[in-house]
Amino acid sequence: MSGQWSQRLAALGIELPAVVKPVGSYVPALRVGDLVYTSGQLPVVAGELAFTGKVAEGAEGLVSPEQANAAARLCALNALAAVHAEVGIDSVVRVVKVVGFVASAPGFTGQPGVINGASDLIGEVFGDAGVHARSAVGVAALPLGAPVEVEIIVQVN
Amino acid sequence: MSGQWSQRLAALGIELPAVVKPVGSYVPALRVGDLVYTSGQLPVVAGELAFTGKVAEGAEGLVSPEQANAAARLCALNALAAVHAEVGIDSVVRVVKVVGFVASAPGFTGQPGVINGASDLIGEVFGDAGVHARSAVGVAALPLGAPVEVEIIVQVN
Amino acid sequence: MSGQWSQRLAALGIELPAVVKPVGSYVPALRVGDLVYTSGQLPVVAGELAFTGKVAEGAEGLVSPEQANAAARLCALNALAAVHAEVGIDSVVRVVKVVGFVASAPGFTGQPGVINGASDLIGEVFGDAGVHARSAVGVAALPLGAPVEVEIIVQVN
Repeated sequence: MSGQWSQRLAALGIELPAVVKPVGSYVPALRVGDLVYTSGQLPVVAGELAFTGKVAEGAEGLVSPEQANAAARLCALNALAAVHAEVGIDSVVRVVKVVGFVASAPGFTGQPGVINGASDLIGEVFGDAGVHARSAVGVAALPLGAPVEVEIIVQVN
Repeated sequence: MSGQWSQRLAALGIELPAVVKPVGSYVPALRVGDLVYTSGQLPVVAGELAFTGKVAEGAEGLVSPEQANAAARLCALNALAAVHAEVGIDSVVRVVKVVGFVASAPGFTGQPGVINGASDLIGEVFGDAGVHARSAVGVAALPLGAPVEVEIIVQVN
Repeated sequence: MSGQWSQRLAALGIELPAVVKPVGSYVPALRVGDLVYTSGQLPVVAGELAFTGKVAEGAEGLVSPEQANAAARLCALNALAAVHAEVGIDSVVRVVKVVGFVASAPGFTGQPGVINGASDLIGEVFGDAGVHARSAVGVAALPLGAPVEVEIIVQVN
């Protein structure tokens, strides 16, 4: 099974990005025993947030649920990059837990659909080994004005 | 000690409900090593949210702290149902951690009293083995408009 | 290495406070295997919140980012006190994870700078063993009106 996730990523045409530099006094991911905890990951691409603002249904100037879903996918991609930098992506045995925070405008309750952007990427890459427990919550604000933040816990060998 | 929690639940007249179907691409609970992580659980009864709306003190049309406490109890019951479906409730050695999110109207700071609804149910069922670490926070919104969401980590044998 | 963290704390002139009494049906910290999970800790000093209110940039009557950073440091100190009461601070092998919740006024997105108050204290005390994964999020409200809540996971021997 050596190299299976690297191969799957390549087959899917997904390239893990460079690890996003932490915006504070911490590291992107850390192993303890057979678990790797990632830090909360933002939808950063090439050093810049790809989306900013709160998420709302059909409101001018805010992030749409579809955009937020794409943002959550970017967060998950950055989380996998952090795992890869810490232990190598091929060490992953399974994805255990995903927590997704969605900066939500008043009245927006579609957090699960947003965080599916992260869960679905994980499912594409890891298949059955990607099936995880998850919490999705709507928060007041996220670092740098990001619409979504995702942290994951994975089991590794 | 085999069967002790099943017996305690029966003695308390508490029946674990059917597992709530996830509202996204994830599973209700997952075991890794000797820990089970549940997904965030909502106050769903028979497929419907028993309460919706933000929590406030004495405000018309919102969820009262007492109702929110009852909602948190339902969340915890659904979390135990998820644990039971994953490993069997009698496998529980102890409850490790509870995180409770409370959809909070402006100015509401009574999150601990709300999440006591979850902690107290866990205490009734598990006694000393139910004593846990906990975080309670007030958030902007929760999936489907739920007033409370609770996730737990339990140690199992 | 026995006693090293006690000695470091003494050298830094930091005295761990008494454990803050939980504001609900839970305990300040709990060990499972070689991990200790703390409950969410508030910026309590001698039984009283040192700061209350939401965090904002330069707004009258609210908590400033600098004050919130100091509050986060107090939260981390209370978390270390909870760890110490549970297993003794000298048992710490490394700090694994920090989650920081910041009660955020509309538009405030400086949560990382706030939670650096916790991360930096942990770095001062534990050095390389204090380098952790972290999530920082902005929430609507916290228990008792606190501006910051911090929970940590540490590995112990």
